[in-house]
Order: sequence, then C-alpha cells, then structure tokens
Amino acid sequence: MTSNMPALITAVRQYSRGTETQVMTDITVTFRRCGITASAEPGDVLLDVAQRSGIQIASYCGGQGTCKQCEIVVLEGTVEPKDPARWWEEATEDGTATLVLACQSLVTEDITVEVPLRALAADPAVRDVDVLTGELVDLSEFLPLTPLSRQFALALSLPTHDDTVSDFDRIVHGLSDQDSELAPLTADLRLLRELPSALRDSSFQVAVTVTDTGVANEIRSVRPVATADSSLGLAIDVGTSSVVVQLVDLTTGRPIAASMRRNAQIAYGEDVISRIVWTQQHDDGLERMHDAIRDTLNQIISHLYAQQGIDPEQVIAVSLAGNTTMTAFLLGIDATTIRRTPHIPAASALPVLAARDIGLATQPDAGVFCHPAVSGFVGGDIIAGILATRMHRSEELCLLVDVGTNGEIVIGNRDWLMCASCSAGPAFEGVGIDAAMPATAGAITSLEYDAQRDTIQYETIYDQPPRGICGTGLVEMIASLAETEVIDRTGTINVDFPSARARGSDYEAEFVLLWPDESGTEEAISIRQHDLDNLLRSKAAVLAGITVLLGNLGLETTDVQRMYLAGAFGGSLDVDKAVAIGLLPDVPRDRIHVVGNSALAGAYLTLMSRKARNEANEIVSSLTYLDLSGDARFMDEFIASDFIPHTDLSRFPSANM
Amino acid sequence: MTSNMPALITAVRQYSRGTETQVMTDITVTFRRCGITASAEPGDVLLDVAQRSGIQIASYCGGQGTCKQCEIVVLEGTVEPKDPARWWEEATEDGTATLVLACQSLVTEDITVEVPLRALAADPAVRDVDVLTGELVDLSEFLPLTPLSRQFALALSLPTHDDTVSDFDRIVHGLSDQDSELAPLTADLRLLRELPSALRDSSFQVAVTVTDTGVANEIRSVRPVATADSSLGLAIDVGTSSVVVQLVDLTTGRPIAASMRRNAQIAYGEDVISRIVWTQQHDDGLERMHDAIRDTLNQIISHLYAQQGIDPEQVIAVSLAGNTTMTAFLLGIDATTIRRTPHIPAASALPVLAARDIGLATQPDAGVFCHPAVSGFVGGDIIAGILATRMHRSEELCLLVDVGTNGEIVIGNRDWLMCASCSAGPAFEGVGIDAAMPATAGAITSLEYDAQRDTIQYETIYDQPPRGICGTGLVEMIASLAETEVIDRTGTINVDFPSARARGSDYEAEFVLLWPDESGTEEAISIRQHDLDNLLRSKAAVLAGITVLLGNLGLETTDVQRMYLAGAFGGSLDVDKAVAIGLLPDVPRDRIHVVGNSALAGAYLTLMSRKARNEANEIVSSLTYLDLSGDARFMDEFIASDFIPHTDLSRFPSANM
Repeated sequence: MTSNMPALITAVRQYSRGTETQVMTDITVTFRRCGITASAEPGDVLLDVAQRSGIQIASYCGGQGTCKQCEIVVLEGTVEPKDPARWWEEATEDGTATLVLACQSLVTEDITVEVPLRALAADPAVRDVDVLTGELVDLSEFLPLTPLSRQFALALSLPTHDDTVSDFDRIVHGLSDQDSELAPLTADLRLLRELPSALRDSSFQVAVTVTDTGVANEIRSVRPVATADSSLGLAIDVGTSSVVVQLVDLTTGRPIAASMRRNAQIAYGEDVISRIVWTQQHDDGLERMHDAIRDTLNQIISHLYAQQGIDPEQVIAVSLAGNTTMTAFLLGIDATTIRRTPHIPAASALPVLAARDIGLATQPDAGVFCHPAVSGFVGGDIIAGILATRMHRSEELCLLVDVGTNGEIVIGNRDWLMCASCSAGPAFEGVGIDAAMPATAGAITSLEYDAQRDTIQYETIYDQPPRGICGTGLVEMIASLAETEVIDRTGTINVDFPSARARGSDYEAEFVLLWPDESGTEEAISIRQHDLDNLLRSKAAVLAGITVLLGNLGLETTDVQRMYLAGAFGGSLDVDKAVAIGLLPDVPRDRIHVVGNSALAGAYLTLMSRKARNEANEIVSSLTYLDLSGDARFMDEFIASDFIPHTDLSRFPSANM
Repeated sequence: MTSNMPALITAVRQYSRGTETQVMTDITVTFRRCGITASAEPGDVLLDVAQRSGIQIASYCGGQGTCKQCEIVVLEGTVEPKDPARWWEEATEDGTATLVLACQSLVTEDITVEVPLRALAADPAVRDVDVLTGELVDLSEFLPLTPLSRQFALALSLPTHDDTVSDFDRIVHGLSDQDSELAPLTADLRLLRELPSALRDSSFQVAVTVTDTGVANEIRSVRPVATADSSLGLAIDVGTSSVVVQLVDLTTGRPIAASMRRNAQIAYGEDVISRIVWTQQHDDGLERMHDAIRDTLNQIISHLYAQQGIDPEQVIAVSLAGNTTMTAFLLGIDATTIRRTPHIPAASALPVLAARDIGLATQPDAGVFCHPAVSGFVGGDIIAGILATRMHRSEELCLLVDVGTNGEIVIGNRDWLMCASCSAGPAFEGVGIDAAMPATAGAITSLEYDAQRDTIQYETIYDQPPRGICGTGLVEMIASLAETEVIDRTGTINVDFPSARARGSDYEAEFVLLWPDESGTEEAISIRQHDLDNLLRSKAAVLAGITVLLGNLGLETTDVQRMYLAGAFGGSLDVDKAVAIGLLPDVPRDRIHVVGNSALAGAYLTLMSRKARNEANEIVSSLTYLDLSGDARFMDEFIASDFIPHTDLSRFPSANM
C-alpha cells in the first residue's frame, strides 16, 4: 500500500483538473457506523473528508500524525500515505481490516471505513451541571443590578399635535422616566428603520431592550409589549475543551440552569496552538473553527431552551469568558498572530457585540460582552476568574490557579497582580483519557483503592452507576494509587503489582479500576500508563508555573494567604490529596479554596453588573504578564515537578508518602 | 379608446395569473427616442414601466394625473385609462398620434411611445457651482478644527517580547501620542477582523481614520500609509429639488469645488408629500426613492472626483443637511408617519453612519453626519441654516427665511428660537418652469423689460449666451413685468399688452422674454401664465409664513434687526425688488442679508467642527415649532399675499407701484 503510489495520485490529480472529469474522478467514502456517504476528490485527506461530512473525529495534534487519536478502520478499498515518514498502519485484531490514521491517509478510490467509538471526538452530549452557588456569586457588592442588557416595558402616550417628539425621543423619554441614569441613549440605523412600524404596530405599548456598550446605552430592539416575558441572559465559559452555559434571570440575578458539552473544535486540535495551526493549513479554517464553537454553543443553548421552556427572544444578554484564542475564533478574528512570537492578539478590550454578529441562537440583538484579555495567553477567562475571586480587591496576598487545558496562575492583591500561563493540557478535563468524563451524573468524584482487599471504594455524582471519573476523582485516584504503590513516584504502573487489576506492560500497561460488571457502561474502567503520564505532566506544568511565578517575585509558598483552585474540580476536591500528588504547593489547608468554574462565575458577574464590567477592564490594566515560554527555570521546574509530588520532597513537608 | 375596456383588462389580468401564461401575456413597450424597449405585464401603469426602465419622466403630482407633466406620445398601439374620471387625451398637432398622461395609462398590448423632451424629468446634468465664500463660512470661531473624521499617519513600532500590547491598543497609543483628546477610542468587529493583516501587510506603517460618533471616537479604517493622500470631506445639501455637493480639504478647511444637479426623486413627485404618497403606493417605493437620491449624490460626487483627480478612498467624512423626509429617504427610513398628522419623524438626532450604510461612493467607512431635525417639517437643513447664520448666538432679533421647495422661517436670538414651515413649491428653484435653470453659466441673474423700446436687458452668469433664468432673475423679472404692467397685481399677463411678446390667452398666455435668435438655446425663452401663478404662490406662502410667525409672537416686521434670505438666490439678488414683489416684508434694506445656500454652509461647519456638531444638537433643543398647517390665519394671509406685493399695500410703504 505504501509502494510508489504518490506518482499515481499526481497523475489522477492532474487529470481531475481537466474540464470534463469532475464527475469521473469523484470518489465515494462510506462511513459505515455513521451511516454517511461522502464524495471526495483524489488526494483528499480522509480526516478532512470526515470532518466536512460532520463526523467529529478526534485530532488533538491538529492532523500532524502524532496524537494517534484519529485511528480509523478501512474495511474495503485502500488509502495512500500522505507523508511516508509519518505513515502508520496496523491490522485489526481479527485480521480482517486495517487500522490507519485518518489525518495521514489520502483517498484515491472508493472506500468503506468505520470510525471506532473512541475516535469520535468529544462526547457530543450536552450535560446538565449544577448552577453556580456559594461564595463566588455573591451579588451584594453589585447592587443595584445593572445587567448588560435590560428590558423595559413602556406604555407610551400616542403622538398628538401638542406632543410631536420623534419616535426615538419618545422612547428615550419613556426610558428616562424609568431610569434617569440611562443617558446617553443611542440606536443604530437598523433600529431606526424598524422604529416607526414597531411602535405603531403595537400602539406604542412596547418592550424595549437597552444594552450598555461601555460608552453609551444602545437601544437594541423595540417589540410589542405582549412578548415581554422575563428577560434572561447567558453566562458562558468558552473553554478550549469544555463549554459551559448558564442561564440567568436578568431581573433577579437568579441562576436558572446550566449545561455543558465538549468544544467541537477538539476535532481540529487538542490545544489552542494546534487549532491555530489547523486554521493556517485550511483556506476556510477560521470559518470552520468559528462554526464549530458557534454550533457547540447553540447546541447547549437549545438544550437549555427546550429544558426550561424558553423562547429564544427572551434571551437579551450574553457574557462570554474565554481565552484569547477561543474568543478570537468565536468572533471570526484570525488568531495566527497569537501563535507567532511575540504572541499579539488583535485587541485586548472588545466592543459589546450583537448576538447576530457571531450567530448565537438568542434574540439577534442581544448584547454580547467579551471579557478583555491581557495578552495572547492571558485571556478573558482568567480576567473573569480574578473578578470572581475578588482578589483584585483583597488586602491579602492571593494566588489563583486555574487548571484548564491552558493552566493559568495569578498572584497579587488590590495593589498589584501578576499572571503566567502554562500549557497544562486537558488531562484533568478528561480529554484523551478513556476512563474520564465531565463532572455530571455517574461521574466518580471520590476514589480509594484498598490494596489489601483489592477493592475500589468510590462515590459518584447523584449516586448513579459509575460511568467514568471526573477531575476531582482523578486527583484522588492518583493519590490513592501512589499511596498504595500501584504507581511509583514517576507515575509508572507497577505491572508486577499483586493484583489482576495491573496488566499489560510498558506503555500498554493499565490498572483496572472497575471491572465490566461493576461499571455503569458494562465496559471496564481502566487507567492507562499513557493517561497517567498526561495527568502528571498537567500537574507538573501547573506546579512549575506556580513555583516560577512566586520565585520571580521573591516570594515563598508560605507567603500566600489565600489560594484559589479553579477549573475542572468541584467543591468536593480533597485538598490534602491535591497537595499530596503535587498539583498544589504545600500550604496550610485552610488557605486553599476550591472555587470551581471561576471563569463562569466572573461571566455571571459581568452579565449582571456594570461595576463588574468596569472592574474587568481595571484588572487588565493592573495585571502584568510573565512569559514562561522559553524560561529555563520553568523547564527545570517542570521536569522536577513531573513526580509525585515533586523530586524535592522537602518542599512537601506535609506529604505523608 | 375609453370605451368599456376595463372589463377586458380584468380578464387579461386573471388570465395572466395562470401558471403557464407569463411569457404569452408579456407586453413590449418601445420608447422610441430613448432607444429603450421594456417588457410589461397587462395592466401595468405606463409611468411605472418607464421609471422601471430608468427613464425619468417628470411627475410632480406623484402619479395623481393633476400636474400633467408626464405627457407622452403614443405612436403605435393604444393604452387604456387607469381611472376614467381622470382620463385626458389629445391628438398631436400633426394629428398622427395621441398625447396621453403616462401616469393614467395602462398598457394592454405592444405599444411604441415617445417621451417629449419636456417630460423628461429633471435636467440630469451635473453643473458646477461657486464654492462657498463669505461671511457664512468663517471658521475662526471653530479653531482648532475638529473634522467629523480625521486621518492620522502612524509609524508604529513592531511588537517585541517587551512590547506585547494588542494590535488595537498599539493603534490607540499611537493615536493618543498625536492627539491626547481622542479617548475614548472604539472599533467595531469588522475593523478588528481586518486589523492583524492590515498592520502586518504594511509593516505597521498605517493611515488610520477616526470618526467622532458623538459618544466616542471610532477607528473606522486602517490602511497602508502609502495611500495616505490629503483627506477630504463632502458637505451636502440634500434639497427636495436640487442637491449640492461641496468638496472640502479636511485638514485646512479649504472648499475645493462644488457641483449640483436635480434630485432624481422629482420623477416620483414634486414635493415631499407626493413622494411619500408614491412610496406608499409602490411595494418597493422606499427602496426606489432611496436609490434615486443615492444615485443623484453619486453622480455629483463622481463628477467632482473626475474633475479634481481624486481617489474616492481620500473622502473620509460626509455632512448631510436635508429636510426630514429627504434624510429619511436617503437613510432608508419609512417617511409615512411624517405625512400623517401629527407628522412624527423616526428620530430627531441620528447616529453617525458609515458611507456604506447608505451606499455613498466615498471610502466605505467614511463617517456620515446627518443634521438633527426638530419635527417632520423642520429638518436638518434648517438647523444647518441657523448654525450658519449664527442667529442662535446673536443678541439681535434675527429672521431666517429659506425659500426652497419647502419654505422655512425661523425667528429668534441666542435666548430662544421659533420656526415654521410652508409648502412654497419649487418654482423659484425653476422646477416646472420651462424658462428657468439653476444659477450656473448662462443663467440670467438680472432682467429688466424696457416697455417703450420693447427690449429686454439682462445679465448672465459668466456672460454666457442666455439659456434660462435662475431664481434671482425670476424675482427681477416679476418686478419688472409688474412695474411695466405687462402683468397686473394678481400676476395675470395682460394679453392685450402692445407687444408681440405677449401672446396666447388665459392659461395659454405667455410673454416672450427672448426670441429664438436672441437665446443661447435657439428656442424662445418665455414666461407662461402657469409659471407666474406658481411663482406668486411660492412667494405668497413664504410671506404668509413670516407674517403669521411674527404675529404669533406679537412682533412687527420692524422689530426684526437682521433678516437672512437663504435658498435659490445668489448674493446678487436685488433686495429692493424682492420686497417690491412681496417675497420679503418691507424692512430697511440694510437689515436684509442674502446668504445663499445656508444649509450647505451649515453642513460645511459641522463637517469641520465638533463644536458646530454640538451646537446643532443644542439648536434642536431650543427651537419651538409652530405648525401652520390648518392654521386659519395662515390661509387668510396666503390668499392676501398672492398679490404683488400684497392686497394690503399699507404693509409695503416702500413699494413703488
């Protein structure tokens, strides 16, 4: 199969450029399990053909042939190697078919393939998550509430000979009567064109939405007052791996519901860098990347609408927290410059948009606030996180650690703030780890291995049968396996461990946590060596980032008075174990606060309060960025931290190994 | 032809609604002189067919069958009456064809027609006019200049590891270095999407345009600095009958050139009311009305570009002064509510637009300022006029009289302002008057009839052979014909006057001013009874408006300390004669200032100065509107004023009749 076929492909390609051969050279690719038949041209990459057809195949490396996530089974016909140097193929276990990497395969003839379930990127399910509660969403500091967009019901008097103000001014007067602080009020041409009929069709009884653009209050829509249900907003965390949308009552500030799903962009790369590279390699790359996140958001939003019985027209405001690249992709802004040194984004602060600008399934005029970014690698998500913890108002020295696909670390207080970011990878978010799942029903949150009895004790969310392990459970799992010496301090599985759970060898080694008959999926839930390596690298990156950032300021871990742990961890995380595995430095436990999704909490605050939106901009101007990329100390610390908990045990006096 | 054909038309219409008859029932209308062949459906109005085909036929009444401007010659085939009650037809002089009104004719079969030259609406020629000079455009009050849009050449430093601000912030810093008063600076999503490549393609050497939106300075475009020629702007008077565009150097404020042409909307009606009615009667009426004024503007603008050798990209700012309806049509806003009592416009103040929003042939991002309106009948043109005269800053009691298709009258000083408007008609602008033309080369500006010698003495602009009479010349003509008793005090031509110049009778009466061999057009230049009636009604409306407005305030004509006469009159207007015919009240002549196109002068000021733009908004809030429509005193005064100079001669003590 890897013989001298490229010559043939070239010939076919040249032929297909002729004028009348388009139909003759079209190739049919049948995706058996998906029930999809796609047409392709000779020389098309199989992964592209699948993605074009709406089949989301995982490709964390962005098509480089390195992550091996896009394994696909060729049942009939053959494919050709894109680059012989990166070619890989293997017979299936039963020997009847061939496994290849879709990203490295060129189609040259009709083929039938099957996508293994594990290659299907990103669990496409939308899952409900607990709505925000607790200390991070205390609105008492932000009263009276000043949501990004507000709806006012106006019963305007009809124009008469003695009252001939313009339609627009009539609305302005009506609004000012309800809130004298709305001036200056503006409107764009689109609204003015609709205004005369909008007012008269509803006999001047209208619901008017007003959006705070930062420099003015813009009248965004004028509709019949009969449709004026309660007005709703969305707080959104646009994560590299996971996207969470929270539905909020804008009048009361009450969070109503929240749901999440994987970011469909995972099909184009695991991290922001590989996704940017992917957009550079595809002519319509930016457009497709935009479509993927827009579709992801709209799937979650539609799920919430259906669940809560909501009319999309009720949703008039959106606050988005995402890293700089996620935000750029959603806005259709080229992110190439973020990848290239010195990593410059198009803008730090962004204008308040309308939902139609980016295709969100809300009222088309809904205001959209995007949190400002500090740099290419310190984005709106971390600004939102700072805002939520209130560390920028604290007298105490605070440390915020957000463990996401991009790990972010902020230190400071009300006088100064410094931040750094590190590429932690999405391991704790469960991406690329078969045994993992989001923190929703059936997820294992707590896990302990009893080596003597060779049993696993666990707790799941809502006590549902176990389907996988969430971030919190992964921390406890590592701690327990290390404590029982199933794994050593480098995270290597002891394949000689006296239990049938430990099996395989080297990179194929795995430890079975739940046997098929114990699992809610009827398949074994196992942790592989590969998974442990990824998890340790993630935590090493975070710990190294903390160490270097503190060291840069001449600070010790013990100087930190409050430490906030945000990201893929619930409030049930056992902080002792987070310290035990070296995810967090060894500080007194009462200083550690597990705050969950701080980016979402910040988005909630900016959705509800002008003061919070102003503070977001203030945070940007007081935040200094420390660039860890190419920092030799960071690489040294990273290597030293890729142990449980660290090579230097003196830094973890409380660790009880 | 007027027999019982409507029944047949109904039958044909029903037939044409069938599924397969579209082609069978199509009718061909051949416009012989224009060289255009159009297809129509049975029952289409001939005027619509012509207008759809781009043939601008005059229709001052908006298709009501009353103005009789749309006479058309049917050479082959026949047309059917739209409304038998309004039907009119007449054989041509040679008896070989039939004259009908295009607006009252339905097409039911293939026909060949010819449009008489006099029916072709609106002289389509673009003509150059003198650029503004004199007292109305003194910029010394407005220094330093703050044009609506400004262009800055920025030589930005390249991003480095030590200088990682975002692209947008880099531009903001560069702009702030040049002008510290530009904050807050904003940009829309479109610009942010273009920014990364715009900066890098030009190695960060860019020309940036910034537009003052009233609430912020918006960065509108970022282009390679090599294209940064001098930046230009346009001041525009969007008149109901005539449109004037002035090209201005934004850096120095120097007016470069100005040109005008008829407003192509004349094809849809002479005044704003008939045009609004026309938009109501046609599904795509508003769109076609918008297209007509946009095309008119772009024809003038393109003429100026060609004449001055200008790249459209240099034009970055536009200031528009138009009445409320003209502005609404240009912006694509429905004006129906302006026509209906109580005459409400969509908005008083309008947002600063981009040229692309309304299709102007400038840089697409050019800022567009529209002067705010007070009401449906006191528009941005009169606000611009007040601004230009500075009467809102004057200690003296000032009266501004703008004689346009809509006559506007403002009285007041720096403490208060009151205005009224009256439907004067476009007679003094020459519309509908065969002998008239705009005040350009060859126009008669001064005219005197020597009854004893039966000769006409005249002066023309640039001493060119006479081609017609401009507004100033029309005033002198009426004064002279009245003085020599060619016409009586009601404006009626004395057909028994002992001169071959007086000929015809009743409504067909006319007075020949220049015989064919004396005229630059080789056709006689005559004034008809119909023309004189229109001119007298125009001046009567203006004089009645002044009288009622003053009376309403308990003021006498003599209380007025400064009177500004604006509109279709040049600085050469003989004010004695304007008083003599009763266009203006009898005040001391040194109080009368003929100020030309004050609306254009105001647009020039707002183009160049933020102070002027702010003043425009202040004027709106201090201006009270007196509604003359349905005012019995106005109707009485109008009838009494429809004389030369007035029925009550005691009001004109200086009149030397």
